[in-house]
Order: sequence, then C-alpha cells, then structure tokens
Amino acid sequence: MNRRMILYMPMQIMKLQAAVMLIPALVGFYYREQSAMSFVLCAAGALLVAFVAAKLLHPEYKTIYAKEGFVIVALTWVLMSVLGALPFVVSGEIPRFTDALFETVSGFTTTGASIVRDVEGLSHAVLFWRSFTHWLGGMGILVFVMAVVNISDRPIHIMRAEMPGPIVGKLAPRAKDTAKILYLMYIGLTVLEIVFLKAGGMSFFEAFVHTFATAGTGGFGIKADSIAGYSPYLQWVITVFMLLFGVNFNIYFLLLARKFRLAAASTEMWVYFGIFFTATAAIVLNLREMYTNASDLIRTSAFQVSSIMTTTGFATTDFDLWPGLSKAVLLSLMIVGACAGSTGGGLKVSRVLILGKAIHREFKKMLHPHSVTVLRLEGKPLDENVISNTLTYFVVYCLITGGCFLLICLDKFNLETAVSATVACFNNIGPAFGAAGPARNYADFSVFSKLVLSGAMLLGRLEIFPLLLALSPVTWIKK
Amino acid sequence: MNRRMILYMPMQIMKLQAAVMLIPALVGFYYREQSAMSFVLCAAGALLVAFVAAKLLHPEYKTIYAKEGFVIVALTWVLMSVLGALPFVVSGEIPRFTDALFETVSGFTTTGASIVRDVEGLSHAVLFWRSFTHWLGGMGILVFVMAVVNISDRPIHIMRAEMPGPIVGKLAPRAKDTAKILYLMYIGLTVLEIVFLKAGGMSFFEAFVHTFATAGTGGFGIKADSIAGYSPYLQWVITVFMLLFGVNFNIYFLLLARKFRLAAASTEMWVYFGIFFTATAAIVLNLREMYTNASDLIRTSAFQVSSIMTTTGFATTDFDLWPGLSKAVLLSLMIVGACAGSTGGGLKVSRVLILGKAIHREFKKMLHPHSVTVLRLEGKPLDENVISNTLTYFVVYCLITGGCFLLICLDKFNLETAVSATVACFNNIGPAFGAAGPARNYADFSVFSKLVLSGAMLLGRLEIFPLLLALSPVTWIKK
Repeated sequence: MNRRMILYMPMQIMKLQAAVMLIPALVGFYYREQSAMSFVLCAAGALLVAFVAAKLLHPEYKTIYAKEGFVIVALTWVLMSVLGALPFVVSGEIPRFTDALFETVSGFTTTGASIVRDVEGLSHAVLFWRSFTHWLGGMGILVFVMAVVNISDRPIHIMRAEMPGPIVGKLAPRAKDTAKILYLMYIGLTVLEIVFLKAGGMSFFEAFVHTFATAGTGGFGIKADSIAGYSPYLQWVITVFMLLFGVNFNIYFLLLARKFRLAAASTEMWVYFGIFFTATAAIVLNLREMYTNASDLIRTSAFQVSSIMTTTGFATTDFDLWPGLSKAVLLSLMIVGACAGSTGGGLKVSRVLILGKAIHREFKKMLHPHSVTVLRLEGKPLDENVISNTLTYFVVYCLITGGCFLLICLDKFNLETAVSATVACFNNIGPAFGAAGPARNYADFSVFSKLVLSGAMLLGRLEIFPLLLALSPVTWIKK
Repeated sequence: MNRRMILYMPMQIMKLQAAVMLIPALVGFYYREQSAMSFVLCAAGALLVAFVAAKLLHPEYKTIYAKEGFVIVALTWVLMSVLGALPFVVSGEIPRFTDALFETVSGFTTTGASIVRDVEGLSHAVLFWRSFTHWLGGMGILVFVMAVVNISDRPIHIMRAEMPGPIVGKLAPRAKDTAKILYLMYIGLTVLEIVFLKAGGMSFFEAFVHTFATAGTGGFGIKADSIAGYSPYLQWVITVFMLLFGVNFNIYFLLLARKFRLAAASTEMWVYFGIFFTATAAIVLNLREMYTNASDLIRTSAFQVSSIMTTTGFATTDFDLWPGLSKAVLLSLMIVGACAGSTGGGLKVSRVLILGKAIHREFKKMLHPHSVTVLRLEGKPLDENVISNTLTYFVVYCLITGGCFLLICLDKFNLETAVSATVACFNNIGPAFGAAGPARNYADFSVFSKLVLSGAMLLGRLEIFPLLLALSPVTWIKK
C-alpha cells in the first residue's frame, strides 16, 4: 500500500478545487454579494493546507495499484465534499454544517437532493457553486485532473474507480488522452446547451446554472418550482439534453470519429431510448384523464421520464400527486438509471443488459446442464469476471438499499417516503415521493438521516465498491 | 420431452387429491353441514376425470429429465389449485371462482393471504380444507406422493423442482426414502403440536386447523383476530412451533440419527435463530413505549417476528399500526424467509449466506485479481454452479418483485400497500401493510390483482424457475 500517495493525491486535487472555487467568487463579486468573500476565504485556506500537506507528504515513488485507486478516489470525494460545504457555512446561507455537507455531497454526486427551504433567497454565488458542483462531479473530478496534469504513472486505476459502468471503455491507448477526449466532448455539449437555453430567453446566469445541472445530470434548480415556470421550448431543450448526457460518451467519440455504423450498433443506446419511449408512453396513457391538452401531457410526461431515468431530478410538475402506476414507473426508472460511461447514475442500462443475459444463460443451463455459452455485449465477448462482478454488484446494491431504508425508518416518515428517499439518493436522482417529493425537500429529515443519505449518495456515485473497499479492513491489513 | 408423462403424472396426483378431499367431507358430515356434499361431489368428479385421462395417456416409458420435472411440478400445482378451489365455489361459501382460486393458491403455497371477509361465518368443512391445504403444500404434495407410490424412475428431478432451497439434501440414497423420512418427521412434529395446543384448552378442531397452518407455515386462522384471542400459553406454543417448522428438516434427521455434533454445526440454523433474536430485540426496543407490561411486549414481538420470518402470517396484533422501523424490520424478514428444506418461504437463509459469501469473495478478487477462493457452506465446498445459480436467482427474484409491483400499482392502492402486498404474497407470508394489513385482507383487490398475486404465490412457493421454465418457449422447442 502506497500510503503517502493515498494522502498526496487528494491534496493535489484540493489545490485544484480551491482554484475552481474562485469562479463562484467572481460571480459573487459581479453581483456585489457578500457571499463572494466566503469563497475566497475558503479557497485560500484550502490552498494553504494543501500546499503544506503536499510538501510534507511528497511521495518517493508514484506507482499505485487497484487498491490505492479505490482509496484515493473515495478519500478525494469525501474531502472534496467537506471543503465544498465550507463556503455555504461561512456565508451563513446554510448555517448548519451537516446541512451544508448534505447539499455539497448531493451536488458533487449529481444527486440534486436539497435541504434549502427557500432556494430563491440564496445569493448568485452560492447558486452558481451548487450547480457547478454538479458539472464537476458529473464527469468525475479525478478524471478532470487527469486530463490536465500527470497525476500518476498508472492513471487507469483511478479511472476505473471513478468512471460509472461495468467496463471502462478506453477511447485512446493512454488513460490521460481518454480523459482529455471525454472532457472535450463534455465541454462541447455543455456549450451547445447554453446556446440553446440562451436562445430561448434565459439570462446568461440561468443558462449556465441549468446547463451545469443538466450536464452533470444533477438537478439543482434556482426556482422553487424547478423548471415548471419556463417555456415549453426551454422544457423541451432540457428534456433533450438530459437524455443526451445520459448516453454513453463512447457513442459521441464514435460519431466524432465518423464511425457511424459502430455507433448505431450500440445495444445499450437503443435499449436506453427504448426505455425512454416505453416509459413515456405508459405515463401518457396513465395520466390521459388529468390533462386536457395533449401537448402538455406529452411534454410533462417526457420531461419527468427523461429527468428521472437520467437521474437528473428536475421537475415541471409535482409527480408525487401522480397515480400509483406512474409513480411506480418512475421508481423503476430511478433504479435502472442511464447508460454506463455517461454522467447519469442508477444501476446503468448496460448492467441491466448483462443481468438479463446472465439470467437467460442460467435458464439454458438448467435445461441443458452441460451447455456452455459465451455472453456478448456490444459485439464483444463478456469476460466471466465482468459477469460475476455485475451479479455481485446487484446483490450489494440491493443490500445497501435495504440497509439505508432500515436506517431512514428510524426517522418519523412513512414507508413510501423512506423507500423512495433511499432510492432517490442512492441512485443520485434527488426528489422522491411523499415528504421528499418534488414540491418539498429533505430539510425535515433528521441529522442522522441526512448523514445516512449523504453516504448513500457517495456510494451510488462511486458505484459502491471503491468506498466500501476503502473502508474495509481487508484493504488495510498487511499480509 | 416426454409429453405423455407430463400430463400423466398430474392426473395421478389428482386421484390422490380427490381421496384427500374426503377428509373435509367427513368433518362436514360430523358437524352436519351442507358443505360436506360439495367436497364429495368435487372429489367424485375429479376421480372420474383423472381415471379416464390416466387410462388414455398411459405412457410407454416413464423416464423423465430435469425439463419434465419442472413442467410436471408446475402443472400439478396449477391443477391442484383449480381442483382445490371448486368445493369453495360449489358450496357457495366463496361464490366467485377467482376468489376461490386465490384462496386455494394461497392455501397450497402456504401463503395464508385471504379474501374471506367473515372467516367466522365459514363452515367447519371449509375451514378444515383451507388449513389442510397448508399442511399438504408445506412439505410438497409431489414429495408426499413420492413417499407413497413409485412415481417415476427418476424422482430426484421432481424433488429438485419442488423442494425449497439452493441445494436438495438427500437424507437417504433413494429419493423415495428421503420423501418418506421427511413426511414421517413432518407428521411427528404435527402430532406434537396438536398435543400441546389441546393441552392449552383448544378444542380438537381448533388444535388441528391451527397446527396444519403452523406446520405448513401458512397462516390461515379461523378467527377474525387470528391468534390474538388465545391465551399467552397458546401464543407461545405457536411461536415455538412456527420457528421449529422453519428449520431445515435435515437438522431433525441428524438429531434422530443421534448425530448431534453435525446438527449443532449447521451455520444456517444458527444464523436463522440469530436473526430471530436480533429482530425480536429490535422490535422490543422500538415498541417499548407502546406497552406497559414487559411480558406482553416480548410475547407480541416474538410472535410477530416468528410468524413473519417463517412466512406463516398469523398475527396477535395489528402490526400495520407499528412504527416505521418495526414495519421495515418485518418487511426485511419477509424477504429473508426461513431455512432451506423447511416448509417456510422467502429467499431462505442459506441463499442469503451464499450471497454474502459470494460478495466477500468478489471484494477479495477486486483487491487481488488473481486470487482463487473456494466457498464452503455447512463445511462442504460449494459448487460454482450453485453460486452462479443463487446469484441469478436473486436477480430474477428482484425482477419478479418489481414486475408484480408494477402490475399491482394498476389497482387503486398506495405504494406501501402495493409493495408490501407483492412481497407478502411472493414470499408466501400472507398479511402485509396498509389495505392488505393483518386487520384487513385481500378482498378489496381487483380480479386482475388477485390473479397477479396468485401467480406470485405460485412463483414464490416453487422458487420461480420451475414455473418460468414450464412457461418458457426454450423448454418446448425441439432442437
């Protein structure tokens, strides 16, 4: 175990985060807000700590293995959230630290669950920072660093621990180049959405914050009614971009490389769009008596489905008031989630595909005990390790859902609230049902529940294993 | 595919079922009830059909394979439920066929979910038959037949499809002898409970029906308040016997064979009792302010935990009124269920153990990619096929839970009722929460929901695969 490297790398990232925190400070200065100074103060403090610590730690050799990769990623995300929460507290806009931490974890993990009762009363700087955490967390902050600096001589272990999905697709032979390509495409799509939103009448500030929240599939808004007050055009633009950010970024790479046939052959992408259309159709049918106007009905259904399945969490209506079936469809979408290699959360469509294929093979095996089948995904044979890892992932996923649910039940809410809040946080969606519905928020949850849900959000974003392995004694005991 | 055998065997079992239906008829004649004749009529009709069909079908060769085993078991259980439902309809005590079918499926699958609004208004014959279906379904009706007649030259395929748990434990070299031993132990425990209940002041009729429902871990009672009206002594006797019927019957075999050390070395048994005590303690702590009397508190908690974890479903209190945490504990117990090789349902403790071991191994593999570990259960190495089968089982289990939940959401209930009713029927418990709580029942569910839940009960009792494989085209298509 390279212990120096485990502490050194998070310190390097803290430097970068401190630099990034000057952006909301600039926004604050522009709007002449007091909160701007709290960002400057926190950034300065963090820089000082990080420089001293990095100097003291400076590791002799930079080699890391899978083990170190998991621990570095887990530790970085926790430190990042703690530092990111400080300006909220210092500015006094979210005075309690556990609340600020919940909000920041929710931001970086691109969940979008909020404890802010009056979001319209926050300063521009704070609103900007909330949304910007989504953008940073969406593609992965360590991936970002890798794109910029030489982070380690084995960056693939970092990438594997931070990138969502069962398999890490390498776009370029070197992990560093893959990171660069990913971020360039991410920035490209971001700029495109800003242009479309600006064209629809949003101010620059509104266009930026909503784009950050869409790109990271986060969901923090700046209005009490989320996106409901914006025009149908803007709602459609956000619907489409949420869907686009939920697609595996490999597809965009293939499109840029003009490999259209390969891009069109992606099973995961077609299943993803298939789920979108099926779920939208089911909800349209279920809600047809609630709406007199067909275009309102279709837009509202498509927006909510896109928002929930990509795990963004914006809303244009209080879907907690929908009938049981529509809510059950949304709950299922929360679990399935978006594509692997996207900024979305949940189980990921490709994991669901692998699980389906494994089930089919098991059925065949029960009828013909001696049959041998090699499973394939996207045309390539699936490694048996990936299959057993995916099956185990699903079991652990269910266990964690059950465990969090039990802990949230210690709070005063009914089972529907407890289940849906757990699912919505663990899968990084944000709004749930009941007391955590889109028209309400997580402010009324106990401090204990907020900590449990913060943990669930981190576990969900990092896909469970890095965080669990970092906490597990097996990782730390020397053989 | 031996198609004749697939139809022939269910007909043989129908003969037996017809004979068994004369027992409630005798009960009815003793109490001079009109309903007695409906049992005689249905039995006579079934005998006639079965004899003619068996004569016509008489298969030339009796060899069956895994395939046929699954189909025979699935078909038998469906036919058994249809025939078992007829006396309810003919007697007019449950006039609608879908209701009668729900009640019978619930009986044979040892679920104990009821649609009868006024259970105290039913005749003795009908009450006896309801409870007796629990007793027959508990140990498996095909296993029963195997114990009595030479059913096939490869009975292990039948046993494997009907016996609960990831591995079928053979108590004797020949499957027929295993079936005999199992049924003798089952009858022994049954007689013992009848004696204990009679000693506590129950009438013979009450002692019989309650014992049948306990032995099969079913849960049909004969009072509107289930077991709440009986004395503390009787409640404790039932608590203990529910627990005993939830233990793997292999343990009793080892005890009878005086292999005490082997019996005491069963991990599954200790984990099972560990779960019982932990869950009871958690609920006692959670409810301590609702009770003034400690012995009431402990008895009520232990009874409900024993009833739910063994998937029986008796109640001595309306646990739907309990606080969230206690309800969440009960919901978790519903899913875990009892031991493999017992009469209880749910996932089974041994599956949970295998899943836990598989997770632990996967963690080790992620840290040390080249490590190889052989998993062991009860001291024996686990076949890799059993591990992957258990992992897949869990995924299918979750998929079916999700699918049924979505279908039940088409009904008018809230999410809590829909989720808990699905879990309670699929895992063969019976009472759930909300509109399906212990103080209410399934009478208000739509015909469609009742059919879905009947399917869920059958899938749960037969552990999914036999029923799914019987319905799957893969089974039927010739290669």
